[in-house]
Amino acid sequence: MQLLYNTQVDKIIKLALEEDIGSGDITTLSTIPESTSAHGRFIAKEDTVLCGIDIAKKVFHLIDPTVEFTTHKNDGDRVKKGEIIAEVEGNARNMLTAERTALNIMQRLSGVATRTAQCVEMVKGTKAKIADTRKTTPGMRALEKYAVRIGGGTNHRYNLADGVLIKDNHIAAAGSITNAVKNARSTIPHTLKIEVEVETFEQLKEALDAGADIIMLDNMTNEQMAECVKITNGRALLEASGNMAQRNLYDVANTGVDIISIGALTHTIVAADISLKFSLNN
Amino acid sequence: MQLLYNTQVDKIIKLALEEDIGSGDITTLSTIPESTSAHGRFIAKEDTVLCGIDIAKKVFHLIDPTVEFTTHKNDGDRVKKGEIIAEVEGNARNMLTAERTALNIMQRLSGVATRTAQCVEMVKGTKAKIADTRKTTPGMRALEKYAVRIGGGTNHRYNLADGVLIKDNHIAAAGSITNAVKNARSTIPHTLKIEVEVETFEQLKEALDAGADIIMLDNMTNEQMAECVKITNGRALLEASGNMAQRNLYDVANTGVDIISIGALTHTIVAADISLKFSLNN
Amino acid sequence: MQLLYNTQVDKIIKLALEEDIGSGDITTLSTIPESTSAHGRFIAKEDTVLCGIDIAKKVFHLIDPTVEFTTHKNDGDRVKKGEIIAEVEGNARNMLTAERTALNIMQRLSGVATRTAQCVEMVKGTKAKIADTRKTTPGMRALEKYAVRIGGGTNHRYNLADGVLIKDNHIAAAGSITNAVKNARSTIPHTLKIEVEVETFEQLKEALDAGADIIMLDNMTNEQMAECVKITNGRALLEASGNMAQRNLYDVANTGVDIISIGALTHTIVAADISLKFSLNN
Amino acid sequence: MQLLYNTQVDKIIKLALEEDIGSGDITTLSTIPESTSAHGRFIAKEDTVLCGIDIAKKVFHLIDPTVEFTTHKNDGDRVKKGEIIAEVEGNARNMLTAERTALNIMQRLSGVATRTAQCVEMVKGTKAKIADTRKTTPGMRALEKYAVRIGGGTNHRYNLADGVLIKDNHIAAAGSITNAVKNARSTIPHTLKIEVEVETFEQLKEALDAGADIIMLDNMTNEQMAECVKITNGRALLEASGNMAQRNLYDVANTGVDIISIGALTHTIVAADISLKFSLNN
Amino acid sequence: MQLLYNTQVDKIIKLALEEDIGSGDITTLSTIPESTSAHGRFIAKEDTVLCGIDIAKKVFHLIDPTVEFTTHKNDGDRVKKGEIIAEVEGNARNMLTAERTALNIMQRLSGVATRTAQCVEMVKGTKAKIADTRKTTPGMRALEKYAVRIGGGTNHRYNLADGVLIKDNHIAAAGSITNAVKNARSTIPHTLKIEVEVETFEQLKEALDAGADIIMLDNMTNEQMAECVKITNGRALLEASGNMAQRNLYDVANTGVDIISIGALTHTIVAADISLKFSLNN
Amino acid sequence: MQLLYNTQVDKIIKLALEEDIGSGDITTLSTIPESTSAHGRFIAKEDTVLCGIDIAKKVFHLIDPTVEFTTHKNDGDRVKKGEIIAEVEGNARNMLTAERTALNIMQRLSGVATRTAQCVEMVKGTKAKIADTRKTTPGMRALEKYAVRIGGGTNHRYNLADGVLIKDNHIAAAGSITNAVKNARSTIPHTLKIEVEVETFEQLKEALDAGADIIMLDNMTNEQMAECVKITNGRALLEASGNMAQRNLYDVANTGVDIISIGALTHTIVAADISLKFSLNN
Repeated sequence: MQLLYNTQVDKIIKLALEEDIGSGDITTLSTIPESTSAHGRFIAKEDTVLCGIDIAKKVFHLIDPTVEFTTHKNDGDRVKKGEIIAEVEGNARNMLTAERTALNIMQRLSGVATRTAQCVEMVKGTKAKIADTRKTTPGMRALEKYAVRIGGGTNHRYNLADGVLIKDNHIAAAGSITNAVKNARSTIPHTLKIEVEVETFEQLKEALDAGADIIMLDNMTNEQMAECVKITNGRALLEASGNMAQRNLYDVANTGVDIISIGALTHTIVAADISLKFSLNN
Repeated sequence: MQLLYNTQVDKIIKLALEEDIGSGDITTLSTIPESTSAHGRFIAKEDTVLCGIDIAKKVFHLIDPTVEFTTHKNDGDRVKKGEIIAEVEGNARNMLTAERTALNIMQRLSGVATRTAQCVEMVKGTKAKIADTRKTTPGMRALEKYAVRIGGGTNHRYNLADGVLIKDNHIAAAGSITNAVKNARSTIPHTLKIEVEVETFEQLKEALDAGADIIMLDNMTNEQMAECVKITNGRALLEASGNMAQRNLYDVANTGVDIISIGALTHTIVAADISLKFSLNN
Repeated sequence: MQLLYNTQVDKIIKLALEEDIGSGDITTLSTIPESTSAHGRFIAKEDTVLCGIDIAKKVFHLIDPTVEFTTHKNDGDRVKKGEIIAEVEGNARNMLTAERTALNIMQRLSGVATRTAQCVEMVKGTKAKIADTRKTTPGMRALEKYAVRIGGGTNHRYNLADGVLIKDNHIAAAGSITNAVKNARSTIPHTLKIEVEVETFEQLKEALDAGADIIMLDNMTNEQMAECVKITNGRALLEASGNMAQRNLYDVANTGVDIISIGALTHTIVAADISLKFSLNN
Repeated sequence: MQLLYNTQVDKIIKLALEEDIGSGDITTLSTIPESTSAHGRFIAKEDTVLCGIDIAKKVFHLIDPTVEFTTHKNDGDRVKKGEIIAEVEGNARNMLTAERTALNIMQRLSGVATRTAQCVEMVKGTKAKIADTRKTTPGMRALEKYAVRIGGGTNHRYNLADGVLIKDNHIAAAGSITNAVKNARSTIPHTLKIEVEVETFEQLKEALDAGADIIMLDNMTNEQMAECVKITNGRALLEASGNMAQRNLYDVANTGVDIISIGALTHTIVAADISLKFSLNN
Repeated sequence: MQLLYNTQVDKIIKLALEEDIGSGDITTLSTIPESTSAHGRFIAKEDTVLCGIDIAKKVFHLIDPTVEFTTHKNDGDRVKKGEIIAEVEGNARNMLTAERTALNIMQRLSGVATRTAQCVEMVKGTKAKIADTRKTTPGMRALEKYAVRIGGGTNHRYNLADGVLIKDNHIAAAGSITNAVKNARSTIPHTLKIEVEVETFEQLKEALDAGADIIMLDNMTNEQMAECVKITNGRALLEASGNMAQRNLYDVANTGVDIISIGALTHTIVAADISLKFSLNN
Repeated sequence: MQLLYNTQVDKIIKLALEEDIGSGDITTLSTIPESTSAHGRFIAKEDTVLCGIDIAKKVFHLIDPTVEFTTHKNDGDRVKKGEIIAEVEGNARNMLTAERTALNIMQRLSGVATRTAQCVEMVKGTKAKIADTRKTTPGMRALEKYAVRIGGGTNHRYNLADGVLIKDNHIAAAGSITNAVKNARSTIPHTLKIEVEVETFEQLKEALDAGADIIMLDNMTNEQMAECVKITNGRALLEASGNMAQRNLYDVANTGVDIISIGALTHTIVAADISLKFSLNN
């Protein structure tokens, strides 16, 4: 998996387990003997781009490191309805306790990856990339941005510290786009690019002259964006933004913009339908 | 707000701020003077049942306790498109830094409350209650269950420790519904009810005879559920379950069941469109 | 062990180790060579119902996963004075550092289990169950409630969220028992029972008519409780409460109540006398 | 209060609130209106040495900083049965939610202080001090050691890092008492004293010659201890130890020892009977 | 202060207080009455660029929010030996307990700011900026990078996630600089720049052709760097790197490089000499 | 390693990894295939007393437990320039991600150990010990005090709770040295020594008469210290203090003092030059 060591991910998994298990799974403890073992299958109940199978594995192993977790599909795989994604074998109590948290995470991430993949598919044949935003679920940013990558999308800045995005309020405070860009350039790390949000051709020109690396075109028509592409002529990256989920993405991409950023990739979450069926061993 | 002291809520807010702010909002720090103040308005961009305004306030005050946060609408209010929900006044830098996290939370919770309110509306005139499930977003359970209540719904058990729900695997392990209920009854706190998931009339009858307090009717037709209501005749609460989001809820409610539980209330999250517009003071 | 994954337990163990070890066990570090190994025996110095042996093991393994921890007795076993409960083998330094924390936990839990078992013994032959309360040691609730179960008792509600217990103040605020029960019923999860504390026969009748699932009889004489049993006639569970530790429990149980809840099970903690004797290997 | 800033105390309070409140006090939330205010009185139900009133205040203020908490008695005060210890005034919901956690802590600490004060009283007129041990409740060490001080006792070392106590295993590993003391002296901070546990006069003499600062006399008769006092003749502090709770402390003190350390001060916890009675305001 | 809300800073302050205070400041508690108040002055014992005064204030207020903390100098001020930096007034015990932690932080940060300012001074008149690296003290990164800014320096990337720096191993794995840059460009957020470390003119040319935004010149002579400036001709930023602390920075800057990054700014920490003198009030 | 279980160490390592890795090492992830393995060598670039090799190992294993970490040198070894300290073998991505954090810690600790060893060397032939102070880096106290021990030094008190050090303010508040010592003696644990800071012979005499165990001689000349040694005549330990780093330590030691405490051991940190060179496997 591409996440490597990530303390944010560990925190959200533990928080999820804490809130789901509380002081213990009393149903399972009172009805299933400690020695009972079981076998389970994760099955896709609809077509989906799989995401989160390694996180699911981590959840199971946090509860019980001895569970055998066999993956048949990997993150990024297009899984068909009815296919088996993974199998688990081990202590029945522990696996039943881990089930919901593992599913809650994997279903959401697969939902994000699937939605992203659909958007990426729509702009196929153009040079435009599909990007996410900071409109992510509290606590889930690392995972949701990972899901966007798995779906074929690209990540916008991770947080307020690793990218500059100058918007109307920043411009107003600095006096002009030119000033805002200059101020940012003189204080931020030289490793970061500067992006400016514009609403008019005039603003675009000022931003380009100020040396902006990226221009966000906010809520423009396709015609306006095509004109921006011409004006810019390769001097900066252009990012289409503003309710893009409700637009024909192919047409947007065809204007020649470099990036289309879509808040709905993560502010709307539709869980993919994945189930886990157990059978107890005798 | 009905949440009171809740350490889970504090944790998820801090996690959200950590992941969004990182080592600092470099755009704001480099373009907006420390002394600049601003005024902001939270505005509904679509009709919504408001939820999370007090959490938004908490987010702002964690960043800067001196921000004046004036609420015009409260959680549970039906807010119309264009209405002002709240106003903030204070240090511009700090408010811009808090903005996204506050919106991310409030938009999601309002989305959950609105969806719940729609479902509650659909069963108006019947005795059925709309309930949530444990299919909540990792880390967000306390908040999402709160949003369901704000939307007029009722909460199913909070976690695995505060309710018994005997499903197929528990029955298989215990040998029978009768055994499973008996085992649970003898070990769980006497303050908790026992719920049993059934798929057939026969199972229903066994569960009732075993003294189950609640029966979950899994994926039954309306006709089957109506028959279950007759069989039960008030001896237990009946809960309709299984892809209920795709059913006509009024018809389901009309069968006479007591509760309709809907995973989609929280496994599908559609953020309500709420914006925050700032104007800098001179 | 019946605890499964429990973050509360992990927290209290880590807190205990932190406060006992501080920046290091300087006596052991300065007098015992790193390569020294040792063998240790946990021995009962008095008769006790054992509880916490798996937690003790966890403590040792947090300090040093390579210690061999062999259990001869399990939680719930009646251990006689002089019997060997468990043996440890491994690095001497690490085991001496773990010793006190492991003993502090196991001695307390065994004390709780033993006291509970004595109470359970007293009501033998009746249908009454012995239950705990929320009067537990800060940070130790999960463990102490586990110890009560190990001693043969049953748990009352775990916390304020997983059970309703309507007392005088709630009744006063709601206006009447009837109102309080109605209000609770309409808002709480349908999976939870409603308990009402009563002091008079009149209150009992009102509570029964209001549909209370459990009635707590507060500080009543045995005669009064017997009368309550008659009045109730199976319509609700009856719980005897109020300084029960100072009563003849058999007589209380003989009134026909279902549960006797005893705060002293956990508000008075008498550590069981268990020692750990090491011998260093040559 | 003498505790000052103490992160350990904050942790155990938060842990206690977390485990008691869970996702919310559903009884209070469903029966008591948000606007209801109340007045409460902490009353001693038996004579006790009060301890923990400032912690109780802290608990209330963590839940609700606006509660007015008026203390009539301070930690260390001998409170008589029936006396009012403190009064609270504020939001009814919040105070009912804080009640149990505040009482659980204060009752235990007052129990420890009272027991300690009884032991101190027993040795009145002698020079012996009553000291605690490391046999404290997991997570509660800072608070329980504070309660011992409030009761007039003195604290033994706080943890394994701030004192040296050489016992049989350390001696065995080092080869002799002489070696063990020498090894410790050469590596530990020069600010710490060295204590050696002895069981015979011979060991005592070796420890004294080795330069031990404190000698623990383990499980000796009063006659043996008196002889040790003679042998020592002021060259080191002498500490009587080993089931001291079951001894006549005055007789032990009369042997001339400097300190009597008693594990039972904290391994046996008997909660003082303190109640909190509320009346709702109209 | 420019730090705003930063959870990393809160964590390190708490960790520092935990490790310094432990279970309490026993000297102060045993010798200074609770009611004693004091007045204290922070005084520069040598010329320094001040940094950390707001953090020091935060430390004092964490221990005791009622301490009056009056700042006479701000972060970034050149303070002369003997000048008063700030004054504190309040409870003597609490201020003595906070003293060391506040000084430990402020002295180190002022040391970093002073060293940075010296380096900035050395390149005065050139366009070169002085930058830090990731060679920061564990846990102190946010604070040390802040100190570099206060000293007039600029920050290199904050961590591994907010900048790309392609070194020899990355090049080896990707097959060539060209491949490495291409791979990075296609997967990283479009908001980030790509930096490549080169050791030869040939590598420089390949990196420029591959579109690198920044080139790190590793351990080159001034002559080589001047040649690189010519070759680059403004197509990318050039960063001089490699034991720069031991070089004549003016000569390095004169080669025309844009940035000089110096690990020693933070891998060598020389605490500035700042003292805090108290006088007790009568 | 002598650290054993230490939660403080775990916290600072995790904090360091969190701040360095953020949401992921994007350079490595985008240029190095997941399956690439590598071999790395830690090499001394200058002579140093090694310290922190086990911590470095821990860092690598936190990121990836499967990395083979082979140590050729141990903490305390005098390592020559060019020598190989350790070798690592494993997944290339994971090792590159762990590199900087491991080096940052080991370089600093080796710097502290080396500086300490130099001081110890200077007083060779005398009885004086070199000790550290509380002037340590926030969050790093446990590690830096460990490094001092590794360098042959001895630790002063760890924190404010495990040693008494009476300074001018304590004396002023208590009225006199005599009072301050008496007050401390009567309330602190009997396991702790009392140290008094003095500036004059008169104060020294009063402190000795009051029974101080250790006397800190503050900023005295060698002649004054020699006189103090005479006056004391073995009745207490003598500690030389005050800018000792700028003194001829041999001359100081020759006055006959027992301990020389040096703040600069930890308030000035000069990272040892240790590098890690990787070669990728084919």
